[in-house]
Amino acid sequence: MSRPDFTKTNGLLPAIAQDSETGDVLMLAYMNEQAFDETLRTGTAVYYSRSRDRLWYKGEESGHVQTIDSIHIDCDADTILLKVQQTGAACHEGYPSCFFRQIDGDETKITLERLVNPDDVYGSNE
Amino acid sequence: MSRPDFTKTNGLLPAIAQDSETGDVLMLAYMNEQAFDETLRTGTAVYYSRSRDRLWYKGEESGHVQTIDSIHIDCDADTILLKVQQTGAACHEGYPSCFFRQIDGDETKITLERLVNPDDVYGSNE
Repeated sequence: MSRPDFTKTNGLLPAIAQDSETGDVLMLAYMNEQAFDETLRTGTAVYYSRSRDRLWYKGEESGHVQTIDSIHIDCDADTILLKVQQTGAACHEGYPSCFFRQIDGDETKITLERLVNPDDVYGSNE
Repeated sequence: MSRPDFTKTNGLLPAIAQDSETGDVLMLAYMNEQAFDETLRTGTAVYYSRSRDRLWYKGEESGHVQTIDSIHIDCDADTILLKVQQTGAACHEGYPSCFFRQIDGDETKITLERLVNPDDVYGSNE
């Protein structure tokens, strides 16, 4: 078996993107089978956007693409791990990783610095 | 806001466990609000087992607990990242990480070595 099991969870599997060099976890998004095949075909991360209900070529608007170094699956074949080279910022809020907040007791602290201003990347109307 | 948003995806959010020291992604499981609160209370990872439909105190059978170093949430507050110290093997198949298989073209290769024999940990009837 060399494929994730897309018969599970209505064909939508979580995919973790990890920076190949630093090991930082960048984000989690979802893939359907078509997104997975497009990821293989293009060599860059393609997800399925649940909010937009369509394939999401990561970086299609921002240019912040994720170039695939390797693809891994877990023991149950229902989670995908992508090791990637991230161009620009993984997070649409301009941070290098979507996990820029740490929960610390009753507070949340920002632990990363913004790489880019989201308004510069996506336009100020977003 | 210092909590994940458990109003999303029927109250079950993906939680990534990452080794604090090596940066290796160990596994992905799910948390409901009670699992999250139990994780905070105990200082060790507690998930919600979808197959067993109950709280899953990671390591309850194997002893392979995950001690929490820090808890992070993503930009949408619907994914949790745990940085942990893993005792023993994260994976029930005896590998240090559940992501022990890499997809390489039409093949899958095992990229990690087993730490423990699952039969020794869970009994031979599992």
